[in-house]
Amino acid sequence: MINASPLKIMKKKQLIHHVFFWLKNPDSKEELNKLLEGLQTLSKIETVRKIHIGVPASTEKRDVVESSYSASELLFFDDLAGQKTYQDHPIHQAFVKNCSHLWQKVVVYDVVDV
Amino acid sequence: MINASPLKIMKKKQLIHHVFFWLKNPDSKEELNKLLEGLQTLSKIETVRKIHIGVPASTEKRDVVESSYSASELLFFDDLAGQKTYQDHPIHQAFVKNCSHLWQKVVVYDVVDV
Repeated sequence: MINASPLKIMKKKQLIHHVFFWLKNPDSKEELNKLLEGLQTLSKIETVRKIHIGVPASTEKRDVVESSYSASELLFFDDLAGQKTYQDHPIHQAFVKNCSHLWQKVVVYDVVDV
Repeated sequence: MINASPLKIMKKKQLIHHVFFWLKNPDSKEELNKLLEGLQTLSKIETVRKIHIGVPASTEKRDVVESSYSASELLFFDDLAGQKTYQDHPIHQAFVKNCSHLWQKVVVYDVVDV
């Protein structure tokens, strides 16, 4: 007899990788576009299950809202191994090589579903 | 004649609301569980399209990785209006009332897909 509920079996604990970028020249549309184009290339990495490339939304300004970043990269992986493959992948390394001169700061949050 | 490509028409620009919580007592499993239970109630808000509740993943420690938070709430909305409905919703307000004593810091990122 299997005790685990079907819901539990079906629920996949995904790995969420959310990166925020602060550009050296935050007012340069050209440099923002270069970064956004570079980020789009990451979708080709085979372990990336979902990708969202974005910019700050025009929600209400509140003390707790951090809106000073220039771009956001939100990736979903099946597991830790998928994230490691991404980190070491030539496409990711090419992105860092081609685009890292554009940013002054990066903050990464790695989250696992509970 | 409609000039927009079908791809452009179909692509929906979602609103991503990502909140990180730092507990007052980060070593208390009980308080973490209370917060996580509170966060689960947010899924009932009708404008929440997707919800991911999580904790720091055990990815490689790097200078750019922020892993000092206790819990993560990642929500997807269709648009700004959906996020506003969520902010003002009684379920969200009950969550804040019941759980805000648990945390010492909150950081919110609101992102819109490009």
